[in-house]
Amino acid sequence: KLFIDTGKDEVFSLIQALNIRVTLTPVLPTRALRSDLTIFMNEWRPMFSRFHVIIVKDPDLKEELKIPEGFNLDVYGKPDIDQVVGSSTSILFSGYSCRYFGYLVSRKKYIISVDDDCLPARDPKGFWVDAVAQHISNLTNPATPFFFNTLYDPYAEGADFVRGYPFSLRGGVKCALSCGLWLNLADHDAPTQALKARQRNSRYVDAVMTVPARSLIPISGINIAFEREAVGPALVPALKLAGEGKCRWETMEDIWSGLCVKIVCDHLGLGVKTGLPYIWRTDRGDPIASLKKEWEGVKLMEDVIPFFQSVRLPREATTVEECIIEVANAVKERLGSMDPVFARAAKAMLDWVKLWQSVGSSS
Amino acid sequence: KLFIDTGKDEVFSLIQALNIRVTLTPVLPTRALRSDLTIFMNEWRPMFSRFHVIIVKDPDLKEELKIPEGFNLDVYGKPDIDQVVGSSTSILFSGYSCRYFGYLVSRKKYIISVDDDCLPARDPKGFWVDAVAQHISNLTNPATPFFFNTLYDPYAEGADFVRGYPFSLRGGVKCALSCGLWLNLADHDAPTQALKARQRNSRYVDAVMTVPARSLIPISGINIAFEREAVGPALVPALKLAGEGKCRWETMEDIWSGLCVKIVCDHLGLGVKTGLPYIWRTDRGDPIASLKKEWEGVKLMEDVIPFFQSVRLPREATTVEECIIEVANAVKERLGSMDPVFARAAKAMLDWVKLWQSVGSSS
Repeated sequence: KLFIDTGKDEVFSLIQALNIRVTLTPVLPTRALRSDLTIFMNEWRPMFSRFHVIIVKDPDLKEELKIPEGFNLDVYGKPDIDQVVGSSTSILFSGYSCRYFGYLVSRKKYIISVDDDCLPARDPKGFWVDAVAQHISNLTNPATPFFFNTLYDPYAEGADFVRGYPFSLRGGVKCALSCGLWLNLADHDAPTQALKARQRNSRYVDAVMTVPARSLIPISGINIAFEREAVGPALVPALKLAGEGKCRWETMEDIWSGLCVKIVCDHLGLGVKTGLPYIWRTDRGDPIASLKKEWEGVKLMEDVIPFFQSVRLPREATTVEECIIEVANAVKERLGSMDPVFARAAKAMLDWVKLWQSVGSSS
Repeated sequence: KLFIDTGKDEVFSLIQALNIRVTLTPVLPTRALRSDLTIFMNEWRPMFSRFHVIIVKDPDLKEELKIPEGFNLDVYGKPDIDQVVGSSTSILFSGYSCRYFGYLVSRKKYIISVDDDCLPARDPKGFWVDAVAQHISNLTNPATPFFFNTLYDPYAEGADFVRGYPFSLRGGVKCALSCGLWLNLADHDAPTQALKARQRNSRYVDAVMTVPARSLIPISGINIAFEREAVGPALVPALKLAGEGKCRWETMEDIWSGLCVKIVCDHLGLGVKTGLPYIWRTDRGDPIASLKKEWEGVKLMEDVIPFFQSVRLPREATTVEECIIEVANAVKERLGSMDPVFARAAKAMLDWVKLWQSVGSSS
């Protein structure tokens, strides 16, 4: 509908090129930690302006947001969050987690989320990367999680399945999540960033690939897209570090949520892709100062990974909501006594499913 | 030793750049289906001339080989094969399988194998790709099969592990096998090649990655490298199609052998990498004419894949040889009655282990 409303020829040819049915309506919830979004929005204008944009203001941010004109957008802040979430205190939408409020209130088929310190990137030929179009292409083409294709995305132009790839698996499965990458500043943790303060990522790897089934991946929330109804409730703001800060390397919410999404996708036979599109990332902050806070996250991961590698969901769990409830119960049982952060995460996951069922699925 | 013997400074700086201990001695068994190797050897001279080269002549080939001067090489033909293999008829070294004779008689640490219709490729900046150096780099740097790194090879220059990657897994494991890729003609099967006769692969994906544990991959023998003692006996010439021909898409030996290698590596905690280096591939042959033969292979794969996806090796199997014997017995038991090709493959695998133990491991 949104596409048709624009009435522009180039939009229609994009639809045809991407083979998108005209009922699809992507949405872009970005989130605002910084109050001045002028540069961010203006740089993204060519890619964002034809879509619905949700901006969620970090409830801790006191200043008024500065947003340029000319977008179809909704802005949400602390009063909206309080009204929807009510008295629940287990789910916190502060800091980087404010994005999840956008996931909750969006009614669109596809959601793309970009951190506000990211700008459009250029490919090696100097052309702007349309991150929205690439994410939609990743999500609308099948994923192939059950067998590895050495020629990368077999659905990309000029690509195909390699000799020996079983024909019965070439149809693939629905792709539920697309994880983009980062030029300039890659998404490192604080120790790596501190050790390699001058390192910049200039390697443009021209590939999209499906992450194989049963292989875990540290999904970053900086540049992702997903199909809301297929997997939305699994993107859950659950793991809040005690010392979580406003720098990316001081957070773990997206890593935890990504592990949840991946095991749910594996269980339900859905695909996760990684690779293109790149965005240009310019983070701020002092990694040395963050090291102390980060250490908590680094230690936690050593307990978290064996848990997610071994957790098995029962056959009866056939919806994303049921899967997340099962994971939450297992977290409580197996990790709950190790660190209070895990018990809180389990509680947040259960509350999130309830919230999603009452708010997220009503349209 | 070979390195030291050259006495050249540029070789020593290569050793240092690659961080190779001076005892390492790569070897390059190529195989000869075509009698005139002049262009092939001259094009590869800059990369091959400092290493030991093994050329195995297809026993079906009647003409004398034409090989230019200036290489440290050994040529093997039908008489050598007959002498070593003796009365065994289960292992056939004809066609593409003649390469396995080179694997058997090599005494070097690393083996690199390249089909004779492949020439060196250029990277997007126009520089020649040194496939030997890249394969050695892949094999001498650790692999990371137990967790996915979205930033590709974390050991590549300018790369690292992504935020959320468990620190306890960053050391990685030994890489036993490196699979390179193909520019110009990708390694498609006959149906794909027939459907997309004009398709050429021009996408240079600047990445190396570890194939995750428990994910199967169709390994092609066109451009591979491996550590002989770590995984050599698993590269086994076993699956010989009844209608196997002299075109790549009419063969399955490497796909089968690759599936064996991958499950053995998964069992023994070794890594398999795919990606760089690219080679430039110019195959010949008529894919339409091959379609009838290929169909046999295509059908077989639909039985082969579920078998390899479900086969489990016992904890007691701790060497490559023991693992291959276990796989061979399972093939006989579970696939043997489906098609005589599988019973023959199981027999060839058992004979190959014996042959490797008597010939391959004596140095």
